[in-house]
Amino acid sequence: MATAYDALVSHHREVFLLGSTSALLGWDQETYMPTGAGEVRAEQLALLARLQHERATDPRIGDWLDDCEAGAERASHGEDDAAERAAIVRELRRDFDRATKLPPALVGELAEVESRAQQAWAGARTDSDFAGFAPWLERMVGLQQQKADCLAETGASRWDALADCYEPGMRAADLERVFSPLRERLVALRERLAGGRAPNHAFVRAKFPIPAQERFVNAVVRAMGFDFERGRIDRSTHPFCTGTGADVRLTTRFHEDNVVDALGSTMHEGGHGLYEQGLPVARLGTPLGEAVSLGIHESQSRLFENHVGRSRAFWEWVWPQAREQLGAGADGFAAAQAFRDANLVQPSLIRVEADEATYDLHVMVRFEIERELIAGDLPVADLPARWNGLYRDYLGVEVPDDRRGCLQDVHWSCGLFGYFPTYTLGNLYAAQFAAAADRALGGLDRLIGRGDFAPLVDWLRDNVHRHGRRYSPAELCQRATGAPLSSEPFFTYLEAKLTDAYEL
Amino acid sequence: MATAYDALVSHHREVFLLGSTSALLGWDQETYMPTGAGEVRAEQLALLARLQHERATDPRIGDWLDDCEAGAERASHGEDDAAERAAIVRELRRDFDRATKLPPALVGELAEVESRAQQAWAGARTDSDFAGFAPWLERMVGLQQQKADCLAETGASRWDALADCYEPGMRAADLERVFSPLRERLVALRERLAGGRAPNHAFVRAKFPIPAQERFVNAVVRAMGFDFERGRIDRSTHPFCTGTGADVRLTTRFHEDNVVDALGSTMHEGGHGLYEQGLPVARLGTPLGEAVSLGIHESQSRLFENHVGRSRAFWEWVWPQAREQLGAGADGFAAAQAFRDANLVQPSLIRVEADEATYDLHVMVRFEIERELIAGDLPVADLPARWNGLYRDYLGVEVPDDRRGCLQDVHWSCGLFGYFPTYTLGNLYAAQFAAAADRALGGLDRLIGRGDFAPLVDWLRDNVHRHGRRYSPAELCQRATGAPLSSEPFFTYLEAKLTDAYEL
Repeated sequence: MATAYDALVSHHREVFLLGSTSALLGWDQETYMPTGAGEVRAEQLALLARLQHERATDPRIGDWLDDCEAGAERASHGEDDAAERAAIVRELRRDFDRATKLPPALVGELAEVESRAQQAWAGARTDSDFAGFAPWLERMVGLQQQKADCLAETGASRWDALADCYEPGMRAADLERVFSPLRERLVALRERLAGGRAPNHAFVRAKFPIPAQERFVNAVVRAMGFDFERGRIDRSTHPFCTGTGADVRLTTRFHEDNVVDALGSTMHEGGHGLYEQGLPVARLGTPLGEAVSLGIHESQSRLFENHVGRSRAFWEWVWPQAREQLGAGADGFAAAQAFRDANLVQPSLIRVEADEATYDLHVMVRFEIERELIAGDLPVADLPARWNGLYRDYLGVEVPDDRRGCLQDVHWSCGLFGYFPTYTLGNLYAAQFAAAADRALGGLDRLIGRGDFAPLVDWLRDNVHRHGRRYSPAELCQRATGAPLSSEPFFTYLEAKLTDAYEL
Repeated sequence: MATAYDALVSHHREVFLLGSTSALLGWDQETYMPTGAGEVRAEQLALLARLQHERATDPRIGDWLDDCEAGAERASHGEDDAAERAAIVRELRRDFDRATKLPPALVGELAEVESRAQQAWAGARTDSDFAGFAPWLERMVGLQQQKADCLAETGASRWDALADCYEPGMRAADLERVFSPLRERLVALRERLAGGRAPNHAFVRAKFPIPAQERFVNAVVRAMGFDFERGRIDRSTHPFCTGTGADVRLTTRFHEDNVVDALGSTMHEGGHGLYEQGLPVARLGTPLGEAVSLGIHESQSRLFENHVGRSRAFWEWVWPQAREQLGAGADGFAAAQAFRDANLVQPSLIRVEADEATYDLHVMVRFEIERELIAGDLPVADLPARWNGLYRDYLGVEVPDDRRGCLQDVHWSCGLFGYFPTYTLGNLYAAQFAAAADRALGGLDRLIGRGDFAPLVDWLRDNVHRHGRRYSPAELCQRATGAPLSSEPFFTYLEAKLTDAYEL
C-alpha cells in the first residue's frame, strides 16, 4: 500500500519530468531549433507549463502533506532517513503553499502582463523611450504588490515576500546590513584603483580563431571537473546552464577578439553545471535534488569564474595550455599580462558588462529602487531620475539615456522583483565558500596553481551540492563556513587581488 | 460556444504537441544527449507517451465524433471546407476506433513483451542463437494474432488487420497480385545483369575527408529544396527523419570511404523531410497535417535517393560541385564512373545494405514469412529453414547463419508485423510518381540534369504532400498518377537504368 509520503514523491517525479522536458525544449530553442519552429515551440512549452502547474497545485498534495505532517510515517524509519523525509515534506509544503496562495485570476493576469510588458520593454529599450514602458511598469508594480500581499508572512515586507521566491528567507533589512558597509568600501576601492596601474587590455583584445578558443575553454571546463558524460557545451547568443543531474547543458559564446570573455562565461556556466551535476541523482524530483536558491547557485558560478578564473595562480597554471591552443596569436603575451587584463576595473553603465569590483554597485542601485517601487515610495515616473542619481553616487558615471540606464535590464518587465540581490549574494557566498575551502584544503591557490581542482569540487560537493534544499541558504552558509553571511571575505579577497593586479 | 468539431480539433492539437515533444526528445537522444542521461530520458518519454495515449483515447472523443457524424455541423460551411472537415472526422474516427479497440490488458502485455523480446532479439542476434529468441517470437506472434482479431474488419485477414496500421487499406491479396510478377522479373533481371559489365566501385571506395563530404551532401539537400529555416541536418548512428511542419530534423552519417552512401542516405532522409515540410502547416494536429502512410512516406525518400540521386543526369549535374567540394581525392574520376558505382547490383544477405534491384526481394521474403506466421501456417521453429530457402530462391545466396539470416531485422521483435511491404510500396509509388511527374513536366532528366528540382518538388507538393491524410494511399496514387498501384513503372525504370549502367 502506498503511503502518503510515497504518493507525494511519485507525484513530484512527474512534475520533475515535465519540468526537465521543458528545460530541454528551452535549450533546443536557444541552440539548434530552426528559426521557423518558434510558434509550435511556444505552444509546446505553454502546454508543458500548464500540465506541470496542474500537477504542482493538485489538491491531493495538500492531503498528502497533512498526513505526513501528522507524523503517520515517522516511526518506521531511521533517524537520518527521517530527517531527509522531514526536509522533503517541509520544502514541498513551502512549494505547495506558495503555488496555491495566488488566486488563479492573479496568476493569469500576471502571465499576460509579463508577456506584454516584456514586448513593450523591448521596444522602449530600442527607442530609449521610458514613457512607452512606464504604464506597463506601473501595472506590473501594482500586480507585484498584490502578489506580495498573497504571499507575505508575518514580519515580512512586500519586497521580502517577493524576494523569498528566489532566495528563501532573504529579507531586505538583513541585506541592507551587509550591503551598506560593502557599498562604501567598494566605492572607496574604485577610487583607490584609479591611482594604480591599469591593465592595457592588449591580451583581451587580441584575436584568436574561434575553434582554438573553443578547444581551450572546453579543456579548462573539463579540468574543472565538469562531466561530459553527464552534460555538454554548445553555443548560444547568451550563455546559460540548464538541466540537472545527468543531463546538464551549458552554452557559451565566442568573439574573435575576446577570449577572456569566452573563458569567463564558460567557467561561470561550468560552475553552475558542477552544482547541478553534484545534486544527488537519487533525489531528483524531490527538493533534496534541487538547488537551494539563486544566490547559492550564483556562488558556484562566480567561484569558478572569479576566484579561480581571475586568479594569478590560475593564469600561471593555464598559460602553457593557452599558448599551445591559442597558437601564434598568444606570442608576446605572458600569464601576468592575462591575469592583469582579466581584472580591469572600469566603472560603466551596463551591469552585464561590469567588472568584479563595480558589479555589485549596479546591483545595489536596483535593490534600492525596487524596494522603493514596491513600497510605493517611488512613483514610476521618477524612476529615471532616481536611477541616474544613484549611478552618479555609486559608480561615478553619468547616464546619457534610458536605454543605457533604467531600461537596460529585462527583469522588471518579466515581473522579477527581488531577484537582483541574488547576484550580489552569489559573490558574497562565493567568497565565503572559497575562504572556507582555502582553510580546509590548506591553500586554494596552491591547488589552482597546479590545475588540481578535484579537492575544491569535492569540498563543494560535500558542503553545498549534495544537500539540495535540505538546509536554508542561511543554514547552509553557516554549516559550510562556520559563519553567517558576511561581506568581509569578499572584500578582503577583492582588495588583495586588485591591489596586486594594479600594483598598488 | 465551441462546437463538437472545434472541441475535437483543439483536443487533438494537444495530442500533436505531446507527440512532437516526444519526437524532439527522441531526436536529441540520438544526436546530442549525454550518455548518462538515458534513464531520465526513458522516463520522460514514457510519461509523454502515457499523456498522449490518455488524450487519444479520451471517451469524449467518441461523443464529439458521434455529434460530427450526425451532421450537426455540415450545413454551416462551404463545400470545400465541408469536404476537409469530413476527411478530418473520418480519419479521427479511424484513429479513435483503432486506439480503443484494443483491451488495456492486451496493450500492456504487448508493451512489455515488445520491450523484452527486443532485448532477447539483440542478444540472440549477437550470438546467432535463434533458439534464444524463438520463445519470445512465439509469444509475440500469439499477441499479434489477438491484436489482429480486435482490429480486423469484414473480409480482412489477420495479417491485413495488422498491415492496415502502417498502410491504410493495404491487403495481402492485392499486394500479392503486384509483387508476384515483379518478383519473377527482378530475379530474371538479377541473372541478366550478371552477364553485364559490373561497376568496379573505385569511386565508392575512394576516401574523402568527412567535413568535405558534409558540405557536399548538405549542398545537394539544399538544392533539392529542403528548407533549412524549417529544418536541420545533424549526425547520428542510423540516419532518420523526425518532426514535421516547420521543425523537421534529418540525420545522416559519414564514412571516410563511402561518400555515395552518405549522399544516398541524406537524399533519402531529405525526401522524407520534404514531405514533412510540405504538409499544410495550418492543419498540423489534424489528420490533414499528417503523412498518409509509411508507403507514401517511403516513396518520397526513394524518389530522391534513387530516381534523382542514382540517375546519370544527376551525376552529370552534380559532378563539378563534387569535384570542387571533395577536393583532390576526386581527381581521376568522372560522372559516368560515379553513376555506374552508385548502381552496383550485388545480391547479398542483408536487407539494409541491399541495392535497388535486389532490395525488394529481401522484402518479399519477409512478406511471405510473416503472413505464414500470423496465419499459423509456419511454426516458429521452422522459420530459419524457410528463410534460408527463400533467400536461395529469390536472391540466389546461401545464408551461413541466423545472425545474417532471420535474426537480422529488429521489426518482429518490436511487434512490427505488416510493416515490411511498405518499403517495397515506397519503391513502387516512387516510380509511379516519378513517371507521372516526368510526363507532366516534360522530362525529369532534363530538369535533374540542370539541378532544377523546384518543378519536381512543386509537383509533389501539389499531388502528394499538401493532401496529408485527405485521401487513402490508393486514392492518392490514382489521383496523382491516373492509375492504381502497379509495378510496371518501377520495373521499366529499373531495367532501363541498370542495362545502361551495366552496358547491356
